[in-house]
Parts: sequence; C-alpha cells; structure tokens
Amino acid sequence: MLIVKKFGGSSVADRERIFNVARRCVGDYKAGNDVIVVLSAMGDTTDDLLALAKEINPNPPKREMDMLLTTGEQVSVALMSMALATMGIPAISLNAFQVAMHTTSSYCNARLKRIDSERIRRELDMRKIVIVTGFQGVNKYDDYTTLGRGGSDTTAVALAAALHADACEIYTDVEGVYTADPRKVPNARKLKEITYDEMLEFATLGAQVLHNRSVEMAKKYGVQLVVRSSLNNAEGTIVKEETTMEKMLISGVAVDKDVTRISVVGLKDKPGIAFRLFDMLAKHDINVDVILQSIGRDGTKDISFTVSQDQAQEAMDVLKNSQKQLTFQNISCKSNVAKVSVVGAGMATNPGVAAKMFEALYNVNINIKMISTSEIRISVLIEQDEADAAVKAIHDAFRLGE
Amino acid sequence: MLIVKKFGGSSVADRERIFNVARRCVGDYKAGNDVIVVLSAMGDTTDDLLALAKEINPNPPKREMDMLLTTGEQVSVALMSMALATMGIPAISLNAFQVAMHTTSSYCNARLKRIDSERIRRELDMRKIVIVTGFQGVNKYDDYTTLGRGGSDTTAVALAAALHADACEIYTDVEGVYTADPRKVPNARKLKEITYDEMLEFATLGAQVLHNRSVEMAKKYGVQLVVRSSLNNAEGTIVKEETTMEKMLISGVAVDKDVTRISVVGLKDKPGIAFRLFDMLAKHDINVDVILQSIGRDGTKDISFTVSQDQAQEAMDVLKNSQKQLTFQNISCKSNVAKVSVVGAGMATNPGVAAKMFEALYNVNINIKMISTSEIRISVLIEQDEADAAVKAIHDAFRLGE
Repeated sequence: MLIVKKFGGSSVADRERIFNVARRCVGDYKAGNDVIVVLSAMGDTTDDLLALAKEINPNPPKREMDMLLTTGEQVSVALMSMALATMGIPAISLNAFQVAMHTTSSYCNARLKRIDSERIRRELDMRKIVIVTGFQGVNKYDDYTTLGRGGSDTTAVALAAALHADACEIYTDVEGVYTADPRKVPNARKLKEITYDEMLEFATLGAQVLHNRSVEMAKKYGVQLVVRSSLNNAEGTIVKEETTMEKMLISGVAVDKDVTRISVVGLKDKPGIAFRLFDMLAKHDINVDVILQSIGRDGTKDISFTVSQDQAQEAMDVLKNSQKQLTFQNISCKSNVAKVSVVGAGMATNPGVAAKMFEALYNVNINIKMISTSEIRISVLIEQDEADAAVKAIHDAFRLGE
Repeated sequence: MLIVKKFGGSSVADRERIFNVARRCVGDYKAGNDVIVVLSAMGDTTDDLLALAKEINPNPPKREMDMLLTTGEQVSVALMSMALATMGIPAISLNAFQVAMHTTSSYCNARLKRIDSERIRRELDMRKIVIVTGFQGVNKYDDYTTLGRGGSDTTAVALAAALHADACEIYTDVEGVYTADPRKVPNARKLKEITYDEMLEFATLGAQVLHNRSVEMAKKYGVQLVVRSSLNNAEGTIVKEETTMEKMLISGVAVDKDVTRISVVGLKDKPGIAFRLFDMLAKHDINVDVILQSIGRDGTKDISFTVSQDQAQEAMDVLKNSQKQLTFQNISCKSNVAKVSVVGAGMATNPGVAAKMFEALYNVNINIKMISTSEIRISVLIEQDEADAAVKAIHDAFRLGE
C-alpha cells in the first residue's frame, strides 16, 4: 500500500511531537507500506516569519513573502528526516523544487497544476520514507508559491491523486468529524463516513477540520480521505463519494459564531442594483456569506447579508460611501449573531427536514432572523448567545447522538 | 559597471542592519550600476538551526543538515528584497535552485562547479537588484549542498567570475587587511593592496578576513576583490594578482593563538613512520598545521606538530592508542602556544627577513620553540602570553607602521 500522511504545524511543534509523528510513520513503513509524509511549518513558525516580514515592510511583495514562508516547511521536513535517521529508518526530505510541485503563477494563493512524481517514486523504490513540504509550490517562473490557508491538506490530496495512493490520512487535533462540536454537545457522535459534499458544507460552516480546496480536489480525483487524530489511534472519519451505509438524513449540526449581519434597506427596485452592491464588496475583497433579498414598501427592496466580524466595519464603510449610487435609504449592522446549520446528503429528497429544524428551535424559544438553504444544508441566523442551545436542540430533534 | 557585494550574517542580523545594507546597495544602483548582493544567514540563525538539529539527532545525515541550513540564507535574501521594496527599488531574491548554483555532490562541504548566469542576467536586464543566497548550492541529485565555512565569500567570487563583474566587494566588520591586528598594535597600518598569495597566507594564520577557498578561486579566475567595512565608507584593501606599488618586503604580521603543540619522541628512524602517523590523524579528520622533524638519539627521531586546541585531546588519544604500531617512546602536549608569522611576497627574493625577525624576538627576550617557513611566510611558535609583545616587536622591526 502507498499511504500519504499529512501532519499540521502543531503536530511537529517540538522534539517530542516530531518523534511522535516519526513513530506513526515507522509503524506503517515496517508493516511493508510505502509512506509519504506531508508536513506544515513547526508550531508558530509561519506567524513568526510573517511578523519578521512586517517589521521590514508592512506591505511586502507577495513573491518575496512566499520566498520567506517556504523556509518554514523545509525546516520541518529536514528535522523529520533526521528523527527517522536516529530510528534507523531511511528517509529523505523534499521541497517543492525537488518534487516539482507545479502551481499557477499567483503568489500567496496559488493553485496546484501538476506534480512530477518521478523523484518521489524513485525514492520510494529505494524503500525510503519520503517527507514532502506542504503548502508550497513552484510556478512557471521558477519562483516559490504558497497555496494559502490549509494548503498542506491540498498538497497531501494532490500527492495522493498523482501517485494513486491507497490511502490519504489527514491528522488533526480532533478525532474526526462529529455530528456537532463535542465540547458543546456531550452526546455528539463521531461520524464513520461522510460524503465530499457534506464535508464541503461543514468546512464553510466553521467546523474547519479540512480546508475546502483539499476536499474539492479529493472529490475531483476520487481520493478517499481519512481525518484522524495525531494524538491517539482512534479510527477517524472517512470522506468519500458515497457512504456505504444507508444515506443519512442528517450528518451533523455545525455552528459559525463569527458572523455579522448587514441590512441595506430601501433600495430602488430596478435591475442591476444587487449586482452593483455585491460587485463593490467583491472589489474590496469582502467575503459575503448568506444573502437574503426581500420586497420592501413603495417599489423598494431590502437586502441583508452576512460577513465575518473582522470585515464588517469595512463593508459598512464601503457601502455608506456609495449610498447615492446604490440608492438605499438606510443601512444597519448587527454583530453577535450566529449561523447554525444542519448538513446531510439525505435531505435533498426529504422535505421534512427544514420543518423539523424550525420546530426544534421554536420548542426552545429561539427566534430565527434569516434562513438560507442549499441542496444538502439548511442554515439559520440566530442570536449568538442562543447558539449552543440551538445546536443541542437540533442535535436531539434529529437523534444524532444515537 | 556590474558590482557583486557580499555581506556576512552580522551585517543582516536585524531590521536596522538590513536597511543599512539596503542603502549601500541602492547607492551603487542609483549611480547606474548593476548590483548583485550575496548574503549569509541572519546573525546566529545557522547556530540556532544546528542546535535544533542536534536536539533531534546528535549525528544528523549531512544531506538533511544542508536541507535545514539552506533555509537561513533564504530568509535573509527575502527580507532584503522586502527592505529594498519599501525604498521603491525593484529587487528579487534568488536561492541556489533559482540561480542554478551547481556544486559537487558532497554535502556540508561541497565545491562550486558551475553557475548558470541566465536568470541573474535576465533580472539585471530588468534593472532589478539581484539578491542571492550565499553558502549554498545544488548538486547533480537536485539536492541542496553547502560550501562549508566562509562559503558565502566563495559564492560572491564565483558569481563575479561567472558574470565577469567589474568589482567584487566583501564587506566585513574590519576596514580591510592590516599589517597587524590594530586592537593589539596601535600603529598597525591598513594595506591598500595585497596579493592573492599573501592573502592566502594571512587567512591560514588566524587573520580570517577572507576564507581561503574564496581567495583561491579569485586567484584562479583573476577576480579582483575589495575587503571593506560594512559600517563605514573607508576604502578597504584590494586583493589582486600583482600590486602596482613596489613589491613590499613584508605586508604584515599575523598571530594564531589557537595552537597546541604535540611532540612525539623516540620514533624508530625508518621509512614510512611519519606517513603512518599523519595518515592516522588525517583519517580522524584532525588538521595538522606546522610539522617539525628532528633527529633524536640512538637511531630514533622526534616529530612535533601543531593542531588547533579543540582537536588536541583527540589527536593525543589517537596516537596513544597506536603507540606500539608507531614505535614511539613518549608523547607530550603543550597548549598555550601561539604562532606568529610575517607574510610578504617580497621575502622570497630577500634572505635577510628571517634573521631580522629572529633578532626582533631576541631583543625582547622571547624564546622560539619551532620555526616553519614557506616562500612568502615565516612562522615561529612561542609562548602564548608573549604573542602580543612579539607581534609588536616584529611590526616595529620591519617598520610596518610607517
């Protein structure tokens, strides 16, 4: 078997943890498997490098930022190789140049295009554990690029796809994907399996076990993922195309508390107004999540949408500065809201889900401010301090703990 | 003009110093020159990385050691490029892969073979300051290598040779090459010029302004070097083939206090004994400097040699363990000795130099324990606490301060 194992920065933060990871890899290796390990930069290395850069230049060129940041993973992989050497295991570390990890040109947020697997195959054939720098690539100019947040997950999935790996294991600080946050909902249950689409909905809902792009890539190339804990040997959650079990109605309840709702009231009801509004926000790199449009009075309409809390002020400023152009009468902002969602591939063919969710909230007296749905998700906006109670009520209503 | 400027780790140790170097480069750039900057790792970075490695593996694989250490210079060059960007100067950092800095295969102590100058030329043509990682290369396996101690000097000289640079400036924490250590000999004089050969003798004598391999390479390719201070604009010392001035009899006095003398007494006087002794030391990577062999009594001979203080104990152990095989009667070790040398291309054709040196030492009552000479150097071994007085006496005798 060829196994790709990915460990994040906290899993290699110090000597002890590095050896912990090394031992896990050696276990698979000694069982006769070929092992590829993908690592992030140690602990806070990336943050430290970012701080160092800001000290020199508050707005550093992105190309040079990537040149700086890519040193972080290179340190991790070299040290891991040294750790394996002390254990008598042949190993070799490879960076993005050595693997030939081709990406698009854009710095700081590049996308993987193609991986040359020749060097890795050669090293595996010599029965070495191959340790690869996550998060980084090389573009057509022969410059380093980085893949953006969660990039190491994407590196692992891409390697698994390129080398037709038999398993791709993503190690995290949780044991897998749960029906709800186990710190908040005591009877939350770890899912054995989940589909790519469900995982994608979860990822955007604040349960950031896996980064979206890695799940999208896994779906595209049919790479079966396992999310499991780097701290113990618990089984984890398998992410794949179709679950072999009966299609679950609901796979879990997720909550995102980093939400601010902005309401723009009294827009002229004519074509192009919504486009102009969201285009303006997009040009300022403001990420809009849930959008709701409703009919107002006297030929006007209202638009409400949510943004993350740290972008709320900028969004307000941008819109206020264009009040005339956008033709609205009033704008208001409400922070301290939370988005609670149920996710499940089964709900697409089952119309009762929404009603059951709303009933659960009604039973505990929670008021719904906004509703948004997709094929496999229903989200509601509620007061932030009611979020935990809402999740528990919904979790119980769908009997997810059983 | 194409100018190569090399700055060591202490010159880029923090924000202020990085900007100090950046300003020097911008000065040359704005005067219309093409500028290549070669940098070492910041401050103590290399030592910190070495410590990190030892924590994981007391004897790390050299290939992985180079993978680890090469991150140091990459951080320096990225930050320098960011500093230049804040000053509005187009710049680009390049590592050994990007330059294509080909070396021999041996890790941790590789030698440069060939530099592809295409990428650098292209960036210079776009009027960018090009910042290159010193100390590192890439071997035929596509692995990082490092060039050993003083490697960044060698990188700078090699780039100057490959690109036919008009000047190669090595910035250090001293203002140039002096007739003696100015901290010890108040009237020591900075040399305007010195030949490659004189510089080579100086370098081996503890006056480590430039590393030997860089001087050897400069001599081979006729690269004229300037050694100057990174702290001020003083003129520095030019290192070249022949001085334009009259050939100086003596260019300076150097001292090396890191010396231990080992005496092996009563070796059988037969062929092959000296070979066996020094071969044994070489196999243990012990670097022998001055060697003296003298005739003992009753068909025996004595061999004395010097090693650096940190290798003395190992040298003693190695030889003691082979006492029978090497057929010696006794071995002794004297630390606290110093080697004082006069260097000068002119002495080859002037027989009075040695006598004058010995007279100067006799006049201040300093006893000579060993003597060794080359074409352009005379070295004596004396008590360490007499070294400063000896240097002063010799410096005065040859009127080097005038």
